[in-house]
Amino acid sequence: MPENARATHLDAVRERNLASVLGAVAHHQPVTRARLAELTGLTKTTVTGQVAVLERLRLVVGADPVRVGGRGRPGAPVSLAPGPVAGLGLEVNGQYLAACVLDMTGAVRARATVAGDNRGRRPDATVAALADLAGRIAAEAAASGLDIVGTAVALPGVLVEDRVNAPNLGWDAVPAADLLTAALPVQPFGVTVDNEANFGALGELWYGAGQGAGSYLYLSGETGVGAGIVVGGKLFRGAHGAAGELGHVVVDPDGRPCRCGGAGCLEQVAGLDALLRTAGIPDASGTAAAGLAELERRLAEGDPAALQAAAAAGAGLAIALTGAVNLLDPDTVVLGGIHARLAPWLVPTVEAAVARSGSRLRGRTPAVRAASLGTESAVRGAAGTAIARIFADPGALA
Amino acid sequence: MPENARATHLDAVRERNLASVLGAVAHHQPVTRARLAELTGLTKTTVTGQVAVLERLRLVVGADPVRVGGRGRPGAPVSLAPGPVAGLGLEVNGQYLAACVLDMTGAVRARATVAGDNRGRRPDATVAALADLAGRIAAEAAASGLDIVGTAVALPGVLVEDRVNAPNLGWDAVPAADLLTAALPVQPFGVTVDNEANFGALGELWYGAGQGAGSYLYLSGETGVGAGIVVGGKLFRGAHGAAGELGHVVVDPDGRPCRCGGAGCLEQVAGLDALLRTAGIPDASGTAAAGLAELERRLAEGDPAALQAAAAAGAGLAIALTGAVNLLDPDTVVLGGIHARLAPWLVPTVEAAVARSGSRLRGRTPAVRAASLGTESAVRGAAGTAIARIFADPGALA
Repeated sequence: MPENARATHLDAVRERNLASVLGAVAHHQPVTRARLAELTGLTKTTVTGQVAVLERLRLVVGADPVRVGGRGRPGAPVSLAPGPVAGLGLEVNGQYLAACVLDMTGAVRARATVAGDNRGRRPDATVAALADLAGRIAAEAAASGLDIVGTAVALPGVLVEDRVNAPNLGWDAVPAADLLTAALPVQPFGVTVDNEANFGALGELWYGAGQGAGSYLYLSGETGVGAGIVVGGKLFRGAHGAAGELGHVVVDPDGRPCRCGGAGCLEQVAGLDALLRTAGIPDASGTAAAGLAELERRLAEGDPAALQAAAAAGAGLAIALTGAVNLLDPDTVVLGGIHARLAPWLVPTVEAAVARSGSRLRGRTPAVRAASLGTESAVRGAAGTAIARIFADPGALA
Repeated sequence: MPENARATHLDAVRERNLASVLGAVAHHQPVTRARLAELTGLTKTTVTGQVAVLERLRLVVGADPVRVGGRGRPGAPVSLAPGPVAGLGLEVNGQYLAACVLDMTGAVRARATVAGDNRGRRPDATVAALADLAGRIAAEAAASGLDIVGTAVALPGVLVEDRVNAPNLGWDAVPAADLLTAALPVQPFGVTVDNEANFGALGELWYGAGQGAGSYLYLSGETGVGAGIVVGGKLFRGAHGAAGELGHVVVDPDGRPCRCGGAGCLEQVAGLDALLRTAGIPDASGTAAAGLAELERRLAEGDPAALQAAAAAGAGLAIALTGAVNLLDPDTVVLGGIHARLAPWLVPTVEAAVARSGSRLRGRTPAVRAASLGTESAVRGAAGTAIARIFADPGALA
């Protein structure tokens, strides 16, 4: 091996060891260096060196000593540091912007939401408003002694070769990553952009109703309807990263035309606009939160039009989700976003349909449940992704 | 490392090297030992030793010398041996049994089909008939100097923890692998059992219309309708191995009840029985081949009932496949089995629907084409799987 190739190789080994030790701390904290050596297969000397690097990077801290069995010298364990290193999640939604700061332990350290209609707003204006929100929450985090080192942004659209198509925002081939990178402060881990359903699936997988599910389908309901597919603990992205467009599964061949170019799509019966339209709730308030709250109020009161809207959404979801279950064979289906809020009116229909369809083939029925992070799944998953990038390559902080 | 652990480790390394050299021969034949050393990163001495092992196992043979650039000593290249080592694929279909023998080069060396109604036949009787077919084709292969070392069996059902549910055969939790292993001769690589749509997808990926597609969806149309999903060159199996049940995607919420437990499934408009029923073709002949041929004849003549059956099947396929494309984002959709035969009447409808739905989101349209192996996709994929097992662990032949 030539000398510089050898150096590169050793750097790569060191970086992998650093990530390996940090991961072992996360899964076994508080944990002694001796135990870390066992867990990682590295020598005690290497572990001690790597822990020193992680302490210098402020990613781990010494925890209270633990005495095993009451004999001998107590171990000097380490834990993940609850700061200052932090990750920022941002979300652009048709009706709001959201932000969330997590520390290395996964704890939420700051959150903010700005209501407002982003549909039809110019992409650069939306990005500027998002950057403004990011600046305010970063200042709030800094006041708590936190230092944001990476950002991930959830968008309600499909990424096609670094450009975003988001019909529900009026975005057509918008170079979102470039716009966001230019608008947000420079950070060691930069800006990661993904579909909000993918981040929602990860949010529920790591912090919510998907915890422990190896393979599951997360349904993201907002103006649009999308799905994040987790297989073996990882996102399934399809050939080009556009997998999970459940909102454009046809549930009524004779149905309304859809912004996607098709007709009779799930989104046209189960998206927020469709629900409010069928329920006869005017979109005059300008905020989806108000419309959704009004729909919930009317459903609780037994308003016939509201119940009809929920029944149509439930029937559409049942068709699309039984199809998805037959195709993907997940353990669990998690209803997120507005469908988590409307779960009492939707889950029984979906559950019965999923249990019926294909039951004689598979001999098992996936569980159907509501997301436990409510409408926060995507922004939490985005922030968690910023943190996950630090875990994957802690040396990048040096 | 303890001495026996070290020996096990060295064995594992040797086995991996053997598979690595065999794989490099397959992809670069005819190829010299020097070039194999470059391709695998192994030393020339190791490669020479492993090639000698592969020659002894009769998996590779010396090819004609090649002189590179006309100078120096000519290399002594090796190629895959076109025998005697061979793999057997078998298929149980509602209306026929099929068998196919491949050698290590992937060439078909023998094939056979036995028409007959297997629907409602006792599983042990069907397995006995399959074993009889396997014995006859193995004898034929032996007469050509071939030695079958592994078998894979395609079944029109779902495997749930080693038991097969195949409603279209009347099989309910049949221990198919046990029955088949008991009925077929003992071979070094034993018996592999999988869903026929999965094997069909692999058959088209390796030898047919899926060649070169990184991610694609293979639709298998017979009495039932299933799909094999290939992502990044590998089968996608879902959480429990039951992914791809496209036949039970709901295409008509008010449609006929289905054997799966649901109603309005794709299979009820696009499966062979449904097509023949709508076309008014009696299932009296006892063989699907006759029914399918009659349907093709009537379609070519413009018979209204036959055209109506094909239109209903095309509409159902369009709904189910646009949903699958939106969920899975494949490069290509391949119509197999009876739908390959009926492709002229189905592809335009499916292609138009797939191009329309979600087009504004993804900005691209997957290709829709007919399987190029006709009704042989599954049995070829099964035989290829038997061969693939040899490539993965050639040392098991020793």
